[in-house]
Amino acid sequence: MLCLGIFSQISLIFAENMISSEPIDEKVEDKVKKNHIIDSVNMLIFLFLLILTTVTIWAFKYRRIRFLHETGLAMIYGLVVGAIIRYASPGIARTHFVTTLPQYENFTRNDPPDGIWLSIRDRSNQTSRNTTFEYSYVGQLYEETEDKDLEAKATFDPEVFFQVLLPPIIFHAGYSLKRRHFFRNLGSIFLYAFLGTTVSCFVVGSLMFAFVQMMPYLPFSFNDCLFFGAIISATDPVTILAVFSDLKVDVDVYALIFGESVLNDAVAIVLAGAIETYSNTGSGPGFEVTAFFKSVGNFLGIFCGAFAIGSSMGCITALLTKFTKIKEYPLLETALFFLMSYSTFLMAEAAELTGIVAVLFCGITQAHYTYNNLSVESRGRTKQLFELLNFLSENFIFSYIGVSVFTFSNHHWEVGFIMLAIVAIVIGRAMNVYPLSFLLNLGRKQKITYAYQHMMMFAGLRGAIAYALAIRNTASVARQTMLSTTVIIVLFTVIVLGGCTTPMLSWLKIRVGVEDEQEMHHFTAVRTPSPSSPHVASHVAPLSHEARAQEKARLVRVWYNFDYKFLKPLLTNSRPLLTETLPTFCMPLARLLTTDEQANTPLDEDKDDDSELIVADSYYSISGHQSFQNADDEELILDDGSHGVAAAAVHSSEVNNSASSDARPPDRVQAPAADDAFTGDLGLGDHVMQARVRLPGPLGDSV
Amino acid sequence: MLCLGIFSQISLIFAENMISSEPIDEKVEDKVKKNHIIDSVNMLIFLFLLILTTVTIWAFKYRRIRFLHETGLAMIYGLVVGAIIRYASPGIARTHFVTTLPQYENFTRNDPPDGIWLSIRDRSNQTSRNTTFEYSYVGQLYEETEDKDLEAKATFDPEVFFQVLLPPIIFHAGYSLKRRHFFRNLGSIFLYAFLGTTVSCFVVGSLMFAFVQMMPYLPFSFNDCLFFGAIISATDPVTILAVFSDLKVDVDVYALIFGESVLNDAVAIVLAGAIETYSNTGSGPGFEVTAFFKSVGNFLGIFCGAFAIGSSMGCITALLTKFTKIKEYPLLETALFFLMSYSTFLMAEAAELTGIVAVLFCGITQAHYTYNNLSVESRGRTKQLFELLNFLSENFIFSYIGVSVFTFSNHHWEVGFIMLAIVAIVIGRAMNVYPLSFLLNLGRKQKITYAYQHMMMFAGLRGAIAYALAIRNTASVARQTMLSTTVIIVLFTVIVLGGCTTPMLSWLKIRVGVEDEQEMHHFTAVRTPSPSSPHVASHVAPLSHEARAQEKARLVRVWYNFDYKFLKPLLTNSRPLLTETLPTFCMPLARLLTTDEQANTPLDEDKDDDSELIVADSYYSISGHQSFQNADDEELILDDGSHGVAAAAVHSSEVNNSASSDARPPDRVQAPAADDAFTGDLGLGDHVMQARVRLPGPLGDSV
Repeated sequence: MLCLGIFSQISLIFAENMISSEPIDEKVEDKVKKNHIIDSVNMLIFLFLLILTTVTIWAFKYRRIRFLHETGLAMIYGLVVGAIIRYASPGIARTHFVTTLPQYENFTRNDPPDGIWLSIRDRSNQTSRNTTFEYSYVGQLYEETEDKDLEAKATFDPEVFFQVLLPPIIFHAGYSLKRRHFFRNLGSIFLYAFLGTTVSCFVVGSLMFAFVQMMPYLPFSFNDCLFFGAIISATDPVTILAVFSDLKVDVDVYALIFGESVLNDAVAIVLAGAIETYSNTGSGPGFEVTAFFKSVGNFLGIFCGAFAIGSSMGCITALLTKFTKIKEYPLLETALFFLMSYSTFLMAEAAELTGIVAVLFCGITQAHYTYNNLSVESRGRTKQLFELLNFLSENFIFSYIGVSVFTFSNHHWEVGFIMLAIVAIVIGRAMNVYPLSFLLNLGRKQKITYAYQHMMMFAGLRGAIAYALAIRNTASVARQTMLSTTVIIVLFTVIVLGGCTTPMLSWLKIRVGVEDEQEMHHFTAVRTPSPSSPHVASHVAPLSHEARAQEKARLVRVWYNFDYKFLKPLLTNSRPLLTETLPTFCMPLARLLTTDEQANTPLDEDKDDDSELIVADSYYSISGHQSFQNADDEELILDDGSHGVAAAAVHSSEVNNSASSDARPPDRVQAPAADDAFTGDLGLGDHVMQARVRLPGPLGDSV
Repeated sequence: MLCLGIFSQISLIFAENMISSEPIDEKVEDKVKKNHIIDSVNMLIFLFLLILTTVTIWAFKYRRIRFLHETGLAMIYGLVVGAIIRYASPGIARTHFVTTLPQYENFTRNDPPDGIWLSIRDRSNQTSRNTTFEYSYVGQLYEETEDKDLEAKATFDPEVFFQVLLPPIIFHAGYSLKRRHFFRNLGSIFLYAFLGTTVSCFVVGSLMFAFVQMMPYLPFSFNDCLFFGAIISATDPVTILAVFSDLKVDVDVYALIFGESVLNDAVAIVLAGAIETYSNTGSGPGFEVTAFFKSVGNFLGIFCGAFAIGSSMGCITALLTKFTKIKEYPLLETALFFLMSYSTFLMAEAAELTGIVAVLFCGITQAHYTYNNLSVESRGRTKQLFELLNFLSENFIFSYIGVSVFTFSNHHWEVGFIMLAIVAIVIGRAMNVYPLSFLLNLGRKQKITYAYQHMMMFAGLRGAIAYALAIRNTASVARQTMLSTTVIIVLFTVIVLGGCTTPMLSWLKIRVGVEDEQEMHHFTAVRTPSPSSPHVASHVAPLSHEARAQEKARLVRVWYNFDYKFLKPLLTNSRPLLTETLPTFCMPLARLLTTDEQANTPLDEDKDDDSELIVADSYYSISGHQSFQNADDEELILDDGSHGVAAAAVHSSEVNNSASSDARPPDRVQAPAADDAFTGDLGLGDHVMQARVRLPGPLGDSV
């Protein structure tokens, strides 16, 4: 505007000439994605290098090689990878918008450049040299207000949430999952998480679309409303479960709410992505079948892909920790564990899947397999590390939500919209919880009581994930309105509902102060008189009622058998050995995959390790084969029995044995369990039978 | 360049009109600094919030307040701080270079804008709406080559090193410092670190300046050469000390090299900063007295300021952990510890001091005071956490050095310069080690042998700090040459010298396999026959030779006394109580500052805790008061003695007692020490007297 002072000159030219006719919006979306993938790949390269270095350091230490130290090693690997990147990798085309002005007349691109190089000719200096400055692409700008200055105040790139803060939270949720309770309620949790979240998403979306018809000044399409429905359907477990933990609330309510919240986040994230894909594909306002199926396919593809990456990385870590002796160096082991887990996230992101979902399943797999291979010290280290990271990330996000109410400049406050959104999410939550609970109760032995249902309804707090999804894109007024609404909903639910959890629990008369230990006492006591008594059978009997339930049960049984007989022996150092479970013609392979340590693992330890699954396994078996009560040839059966095909039957007897032996010296059960069972349960099992009376199987919901 | 396709338009206007006549270079430097401070302050705000949240969570848990959960709390604090930032804080002036082109003719600024908003009018769309994109300032661009595309490949903002990777490395160095050995050689270490690094810096700088005269095509000023001297004088302890640890090398070589490397980094960083200040102030080529003194003042100011921030934050953490019962929640305690430590770094950076130096002293203070207040679990957690962070950061940097050889585009390779630089650093190192060792040997009882000197000479590897300093600014060809040279020197020294450490040790016949335990055995054995025998006195006697040494010793004694009697009782839960050591008129205050826990601390524990200092203390005392051999009224002296003013004398007797009691049941000394003494020594003390015979005092170098 002003041309005072020393004469200098800016010059801008286009570095290259690709010109496209695509609309800007899509270009922008692509650019964000491309940059995200580049970032992920860059980071991944370094994680890969660190993993390589960690493993090699171990190998060097193990073989006492000293001529090259770890730092030297890191550098040499770095050099090799750097050379490969430079000379062998395909170039990443980056557009730059560059240099001298005079030629500049028409800007002919729809595609914003990736960077701007601004040349200033500094004539004050007599040297007339050009100084060039580099500017990098930040994003689209929606409001050029004076508030813009706020951007410099206490705000972060929203990608920080997805790249840095969420992964540890979600990984921790997976890693510290109370698998016993989770698996017991698996069916219900899946139904709530998948069907429930989808119902909630569509209900909220439709309601909001109806509401915005009353506010014509708001530029909301149906897809926008659905997107809002998806992001606001991600419930947050943090606040409510902290209260639950403190008060030791009934384990089933705990399991249902925790399980739902954790999976629900993953579902909401993928759902939001699928709706965006649908919006981009279907350009018309109406319903498009192709686009719909594309986004359903997208949903399934992303979910399965992320699941595959997450669980395979978990398995690779398990193999690495099983077949190297890295456990002799807990530091290296912990580092490897951390790096593999974070790589999982980045790999999924780089593959355009959802890192959060991948990292969730990675966490579950790590807890299920890798954890058993870790040294005692590393178990503690990894638990504590992720606990700390989780704590810091969580509180950082919630602080940020508070701060950003004032400092983030892309807010768009619509009081009416916020009010109606609150109405909509309450209805959406109700449509999720009550009908699904009714359906589940049809099949569940242990009913989900109304008190539990009300509690679940009440527990629908919104938190970090909803916020992170909302802040990721504040491109349009619609998106800004969503963000502002989400912020208010998060504030409201966390502060008000979170604060009322304790009164609510007592009002609903939900049991609190339920010590796991006490429960165990109870169950042990119940079972003690006759370990293989009709008392157990009476609970078991109804299981064989329905063919459908049996079918479901058989699938689960097949999986547990497979896990117990092949996956666990392959991935961990637990018994039985693969040499015992694999068919004879696979013996050489089996021997190769069995470590000395594994062969020397005492049978007892192993049994405890797997008891949870065996319980599950045996459960249906008992109902099928009520005659297995041979309580005294435990060793024999474990050593020989599992060769055969009647594994289910064999396991059932085995469990009955362990059950009865538990019952005899009750200390054995109580000692390792106690509170620890509820705060970690990473040890898997330990607490063998106490679940039995409470709920009838791994899928407690099947009749 | 091309004006094809859809017609669109870029528009650029100036948002504001401040015009300056300062040269661009300074403006750029200022901008980098300003952005850095803004980043630090932003991050600091969140850390502050997290600290506040952590402490409040504890308070809530402690008082069983449940109506507000931690996440709600975090948000509420966030809201308050956000509102303050928005309405009460001074605006941060950000320049933006904005909008529509027609007015644009002359660009009249020397000051590159902080951001560019690029408007593209998308006429293809019939709506003729403008889409604006935001670009943020990255930095000055020096070469507009096609290699620029590489930037997207596996490179990071150099600030990442300073903000994220270095702090944990340096903090860990301070936190895991083997204080006993460090303090024993304190004088020597200080001389090597301060005088030695300065000597090395000037020698290398001058030599390089002489050398570049032979290469007139290289645009190196004398200041550039000095700057190079400073960055390349930062030696790296990582590689060599890992080998030392593995081989259990003689503790004194270890202490000397470790201590020197750690302090040396801090000195080099501050020195580099001071030289930059000098370059900016003194614009002429000659020597300018004002500028010189300004940069000397700068050096001292930054060092003292950083020291003050680091140690006060350490003390605040100690107070927080002492006066709250946060130790009941190790997770919160660890989080608080971590947050306070990282805040220290950011505070120093925001205050334009050196975060690295602050965090080093913070680490030492945390280890000296806070560590004693932590719960057992948090001690483990913090050690393991920083060990892991240190491991990951270190290997990340070394990997990055390797990768960046190929991917970083601002390299400038000069074979001649690199060769000569290697010659110069060898000479610089020699001028540091040999003359200073000679000087030190004049005063040291336990001489630094030639073998030790050669080893120190050899141990001058360059690593992470040198690289981080070099990559921070690659503005000119001179700086780029420095970076490339540094990379080669790091690669060379770490791989070649690091690899030859073991052969070198055996060639120099330096003792390896020295178990701390063995040493203790040895010393215990020597002392056992007569705990208060002339044998001890014979080593002690020479101490009283020189007045200068006495003077020095008195200063140290005063400090140790002060620490033992006032700081430790104030900051930790150790005995003696402040009520015992403070003058009578301070009693109310003393009672206020003494916790119940502290009053109930058993005397024994406390004694061990401080024994290191007492040893040091007593040492000089013994030489002064040879008559203190009363070995049987230990309790009495500890309880009453420290009230008086003759504390030195009292302590000396106390130590003699503990020494003799140690000698009687040797198990007591051995049990807690062993290897642990060398891998952590955070427990402070435990290993009371074994140092005595080896080196004659905390300042082993004074006669």
